[in-house]
Amino acid sequence: MISGERFSVIYRLISADEQEARQKAWAICLEQTVEFPEELVPAGMIRDDIVGRIEALAPISAGVYQAVISYAVETTANEFTQLLNVVFGNISIKPGIRVERLALPQSLLSQYCGPRFGREGLRELLGVSGRPLLFTALKPMGLSPAQLADMAYKCAMGGIDIIKDDHGLTNQVFAPFRERVTACVAAVEKANARTGRQTIYVPNITAPANEVVARAKLAKTLGAKGVMLSPAITGLAVMKFLADDAEFGLPVISHPAFQGSYVTAHDNGISHFALFGQITRLAGADIVIYPNFGGRFSFSREECQDIARGTCVNMGQIKPIFPSPGGGMSLDRIGELMAVYGNEVIFLVGGGLFKHGPDLEENCRYFLDMVSNFSNTGDN
Amino acid sequence: MISGERFSVIYRLISADEQEARQKAWAICLEQTVEFPEELVPAGMIRDDIVGRIEALAPISAGVYQAVISYAVETTANEFTQLLNVVFGNISIKPGIRVERLALPQSLLSQYCGPRFGREGLRELLGVSGRPLLFTALKPMGLSPAQLADMAYKCAMGGIDIIKDDHGLTNQVFAPFRERVTACVAAVEKANARTGRQTIYVPNITAPANEVVARAKLAKTLGAKGVMLSPAITGLAVMKFLADDAEFGLPVISHPAFQGSYVTAHDNGISHFALFGQITRLAGADIVIYPNFGGRFSFSREECQDIARGTCVNMGQIKPIFPSPGGGMSLDRIGELMAVYGNEVIFLVGGGLFKHGPDLEENCRYFLDMVSNFSNTGDN
Repeated sequence: MISGERFSVIYRLISADEQEARQKAWAICLEQTVEFPEELVPAGMIRDDIVGRIEALAPISAGVYQAVISYAVETTANEFTQLLNVVFGNISIKPGIRVERLALPQSLLSQYCGPRFGREGLRELLGVSGRPLLFTALKPMGLSPAQLADMAYKCAMGGIDIIKDDHGLTNQVFAPFRERVTACVAAVEKANARTGRQTIYVPNITAPANEVVARAKLAKTLGAKGVMLSPAITGLAVMKFLADDAEFGLPVISHPAFQGSYVTAHDNGISHFALFGQITRLAGADIVIYPNFGGRFSFSREECQDIARGTCVNMGQIKPIFPSPGGGMSLDRIGELMAVYGNEVIFLVGGGLFKHGPDLEENCRYFLDMVSNFSNTGDN
Repeated sequence: MISGERFSVIYRLISADEQEARQKAWAICLEQTVEFPEELVPAGMIRDDIVGRIEALAPISAGVYQAVISYAVETTANEFTQLLNVVFGNISIKPGIRVERLALPQSLLSQYCGPRFGREGLRELLGVSGRPLLFTALKPMGLSPAQLADMAYKCAMGGIDIIKDDHGLTNQVFAPFRERVTACVAAVEKANARTGRQTIYVPNITAPANEVVARAKLAKTLGAKGVMLSPAITGLAVMKFLADDAEFGLPVISHPAFQGSYVTAHDNGISHFALFGQITRLAGADIVIYPNFGGRFSFSREECQDIARGTCVNMGQIKPIFPSPGGGMSLDRIGELMAVYGNEVIFLVGGGLFKHGPDLEENCRYFLDMVSNFSNTGDN
């Protein structure tokens, strides 16, 4: 029943000394598997293989330790949901434990499809190489489908590659889903016919459990070329289900709404690298949106760089995905940000695109020019 | 388009002074609705009604403020998922903001079914009144269906009211779902036939997105009388979907795995009261499991009392549910815990039940006697 294949999780532990750290690591080994008092754990397979194993433990700074704990792949039952549970189920409730990184063997990775498009597939879909991709959001809530579509048209004419709904647009009376998607798809197609570009419109499909997949399929039927959802609201597994569905087959974008509590406390939760990088890739997103450093949120430059690293760290056949920093981005920072992220990034500029000047289409052109100039490809 | 009906969220803000607190509150009003620079928010309905409103702001201690912010009910589109997004979507990423409490008007509450059974319905189903209910978990992972069923039989013979899977048992090769449920249902039915009790077996249905509902229905077909899931893993909305399904119609139990990060940091996240009480009730759970104070987790007695309050605070037609403290409970604490929780509680004792003595059935009887004696009803 036990193959001997194990995966590892690297945890960061807050502990006064090595003895306490070792106790904490051992408590994790029990808690995440048998959840049973140590003295009662049956001998044999359960004690030898199912209980987690401390593979390494080392101090990394005063009062901070790193533990590498391995688990039998069979504990996850080939289920993404149960993988999340083994990695961080009950211990999410214990302070002073943070998931830093997953180390998954090929035998486990091969159970996952990962993102369908990834970086290369998205570039092909959009027909853009050699520069960062441009991304914006339609808002504010309260506008009509016609007003949002007008905005989408201008953004597409101005050269934005991906135009999404604001993540707060679901099915409000102001702009019901079907009407909004129909109008925005038509607007972007009209612009594409003029520009020759392959700009895509991506509606937000975050919705109640019985409606997410239906909205995704409706969006596709109406001509949308991708979907966005907030996996902490719908469930990460719902995102994975959509991404895995070959018949659906559109790019999937992950939005961080309701997900922040996993990363806002330095000593608890999940690292930016693991959550927005590794776990989001396992869950099949092609693009991961997160708040950029220096905007109106509080991620540091280092945390954002960790996310970018997590989006492309080797995970077997699981493709690299695009990091998409947003959240208070302004156009005058493009040069600085390209120095940090390079070309393999999608800049999500929302409000900043509107603030730049009175003509939205002109603002988009300026955004594209900036990015094209800094990437020195001449390709715009 | 705007009814004038608004709901409120009470936030706890970490701010140096009142001016900073007001700025933070106003930033929430914008972030959670229009997500747009203030100066660009269109006049009229959007600025007047859709943008959140600061209804009150007051200091509660040094550097800590409480803000009451109201939102138009229309922003939620009658969707639980979008309600979560308005309450704590993007601001989950901003440190120093905690959701303390929801204040929902009848017009919004009336959109929600809430728990199907609630406290009264569960007592009726189980045929137990006048004392706390007894709850245990089958474990450890690695046991076979026959071994787990044997354990279930002994627990049911000993008088446990609800016997659940450990939350880590999903569909592992050691005890596949169908075989496990079949065996445990039969064992509990056999015991019930002898004792005359109405003990129920509740399998864990936490599973990938396309399998949760299927497992819930399979469990029912196989004779299970309730289901448990970890909503932070499946998505809270998935739990609500099941609870709302009249044809399914079984009690639903919420497990806190992967949910801890919302509550482990005092200055971020969601309060115990709102998350385990109010939000879990909106999501339809009849029982909410959480780690008790004094066990191997770190919730304080006050936080646990807040949870208990949240499970029964007035929410219109949404029924009160059972708080179910677990996580390192030992039998010798029953008296102390009944002084804290009273009779309207479900004691979840896992490992402690096994540790008490070598005879599991006897241990269960002892547990029941303790609870019955302390509740002074003579009803056991």
